[in-house]
Amino acid sequence: MQSNVLTLLSDFGTRDYYVGAMKGTIAQINSALTVIDITHDIPAQNIAHARFVLSSAFACFPQGTVHVAVVDPGVGTHRRAIALAVGERADQPDGFLVGPDNGIFSGILDQVPFIKAIELNNPQYWRSLQVSHTFHGRDIFAPVGAHLASGVEISKLGTEIALETLISLNVPAPTYEAQVIRGCIQTVDHFGNLITNIPQSAVAGSSWEVEIRERHLLGLTTYEGVAPGMAVALIGSHGYVEIAVNCGNAQQQLGCQSGETVVVHLD
Amino acid sequence: MQSNVLTLLSDFGTRDYYVGAMKGTIAQINSALTVIDITHDIPAQNIAHARFVLSSAFACFPQGTVHVAVVDPGVGTHRRAIALAVGERADQPDGFLVGPDNGIFSGILDQVPFIKAIELNNPQYWRSLQVSHTFHGRDIFAPVGAHLASGVEISKLGTEIALETLISLNVPAPTYEAQVIRGCIQTVDHFGNLITNIPQSAVAGSSWEVEIRERHLLGLTTYEGVAPGMAVALIGSHGYVEIAVNCGNAQQQLGCQSGETVVVHLD
Amino acid sequence: MQSNVLTLLSDFGTRDYYVGAMKGTIAQINSALTVIDITHDIPAQNIAHARFVLSSAFACFPQGTVHVAVVDPGVGTHRRAIALAVGERADQPDGFLVGPDNGIFSGILDQVPFIKAIELNNPQYWRSLQVSHTFHGRDIFAPVGAHLASGVEISKLGTEIALETLISLNVPAPTYEAQVIRGCIQTVDHFGNLITNIPQSAVAGSSWEVEIRERHLLGLTTYEGVAPGMAVALIGSHGYVEIAVNCGNAQQQLGCQSGETVVVHLD
Repeated sequence: MQSNVLTLLSDFGTRDYYVGAMKGTIAQINSALTVIDITHDIPAQNIAHARFVLSSAFACFPQGTVHVAVVDPGVGTHRRAIALAVGERADQPDGFLVGPDNGIFSGILDQVPFIKAIELNNPQYWRSLQVSHTFHGRDIFAPVGAHLASGVEISKLGTEIALETLISLNVPAPTYEAQVIRGCIQTVDHFGNLITNIPQSAVAGSSWEVEIRERHLLGLTTYEGVAPGMAVALIGSHGYVEIAVNCGNAQQQLGCQSGETVVVHLD
Repeated sequence: MQSNVLTLLSDFGTRDYYVGAMKGTIAQINSALTVIDITHDIPAQNIAHARFVLSSAFACFPQGTVHVAVVDPGVGTHRRAIALAVGERADQPDGFLVGPDNGIFSGILDQVPFIKAIELNNPQYWRSLQVSHTFHGRDIFAPVGAHLASGVEISKLGTEIALETLISLNVPAPTYEAQVIRGCIQTVDHFGNLITNIPQSAVAGSSWEVEIRERHLLGLTTYEGVAPGMAVALIGSHGYVEIAVNCGNAQQQLGCQSGETVVVHLD
Repeated sequence: MQSNVLTLLSDFGTRDYYVGAMKGTIAQINSALTVIDITHDIPAQNIAHARFVLSSAFACFPQGTVHVAVVDPGVGTHRRAIALAVGERADQPDGFLVGPDNGIFSGILDQVPFIKAIELNNPQYWRSLQVSHTFHGRDIFAPVGAHLASGVEISKLGTEIALETLISLNVPAPTYEAQVIRGCIQTVDHFGNLITNIPQSAVAGSSWEVEIRERHLLGLTTYEGVAPGMAVALIGSHGYVEIAVNCGNAQQQLGCQSGETVVVHLD
């Protein structure tokens, strides 16, 4: 049922021992797993960015992949540690999610059916040494993920809990009014592309343009014919309307930030 | 023929979902491949830096390694997607190169014989879902690379094209005049070392010194006997003359940039 | 005896070809090894930070793991290249350490028994091409590590040398006086947590508080009940007293640097 693939996502950065400690702990349990970094450069404690990155990457992974995600400002407090199974078939989940109960998995739960949630309270699958109060990535989430990817049944990891009890973190939905969609920038990527919360489906089949900071940008399909340095609106690879500059940086050129309003006008 | 080793090089950075999406796509095709990151921190759209890094790393990899390189400002336009086989023997290539036709592989083609080039126009080896106009790394290059590293014949990936039609990106050659070689800084590394375009062979067997910004630096073999903080000229591990500061940063100390003139005087 | 797990730690950064070159060289020798990056973002030439990161990660790895660590300002000079075996049992070492003899392994030698040290002077296990004077990571340490992780006996790698001859790099020990422990900040992590040199054992079983820059911070067990933005003292996951800000950055809030004095008052 499992794929032997385990991914890691965190805000640990890459200059300290944290990521190495998680990978060593996984190798102690099963060094034959395929361990893939999604990223460790989530801005510190930014659960919303982690939510977006994880839900964008999810569909690219093999059926049964275990995703361990640790952006965890509540570590050591009463926030729960959880594992989820998601997908169409309970006997063959699309994937497993392991991490803190703080909304980090909400983006995946918006797109993939929920199967089961477990509170991680069976220490048999934790790191055998003393569990720290500040590094559950090493002491709980990495070992639990490694056991899950090695074939341990999710129900052995702890007590089943209800979907309704999970903390959820929602991105505000855009509002639709006749030919006008009002949304916002939900995240800005490494290239300075401004990624909105307006889904591809909202503009499919129409001509459209984006209004941002009193500029109007034509909605295009590709960069074809766009001069370098010119701002355009496109459908990004994650399925949302995005604002980009050909061979340039839209955030720097337009001066925009996450949260800012974006309006789409359909033709 | 293939080595089951696949490398990735890109300008995607490591804080978004792009790298994870490529690795997930590869794992969906063959999670038993050995996937190695060369770097994802190529400065955005800097094909010249990617060319240098890739050609410096190439010789270190096993025979038959597949290199997927995605610095791709022309994504979604008419630029071609290509795969190349290079090496001494057509039946046993030294390596395979997969990426956009924009000169990113020119450095390797300068040092290793060309065998064959294919335009990637057979969608059977692409990602099965809809191909985006902005992320061929995930939708074309990663899956094609994974199939190639898994044993698919390169000729199945599309139509053969001629070497002469490939876009090439050349670093200016140094000029040689009696005992004077006039070159330039072709790149600056993470330590601030200034790497020139003057090859080791040009200074072999002579005494030599480097002139840069009106300073004269003796050409040495090692850091042995150089005081910390002192600037020197050396042969770098990539085979070019480089200017370094022992335990320090030559770019900061000398204030130099890529492209700046460097003169070597032979004795 | 070996675990087939090999880790890499360096100050090479991730934007150049250096890390790729080491991994390619390893794959040329044995592409079936499990290669794990601890970090390549050690600040340039900062042996002390490398020492701390490596000794913090060490205990998380499987028995027999080979750790290749390259922070090597003395490359190409007379500093020795070494391999060490450490652990309780000579016939089954806990781990192997490969790198320059400059104190980078001192932190591990403080916590794990020494078994054997070898000077790497047998070129049979080096890169077969010419060895550069500036990149022993690629030309000596990576290939030696790959052979060791593949089962080569450590004694074949060169000449045995005595523990007493190794360069050692010690962190100053805290001083203890009645109820007062005087230490310092030994490193600052990615989150801005200030990690001291005062071990957990020094405060176990007492109430304690930390004095730093004329502020007094209560020593706590967890973040539970701490308001966001509030500074606290905790036992970090590495086993030292650390100063942190809940959901914030202690270095920025307190303005402290490595080396600064920290005083613990026991109750």
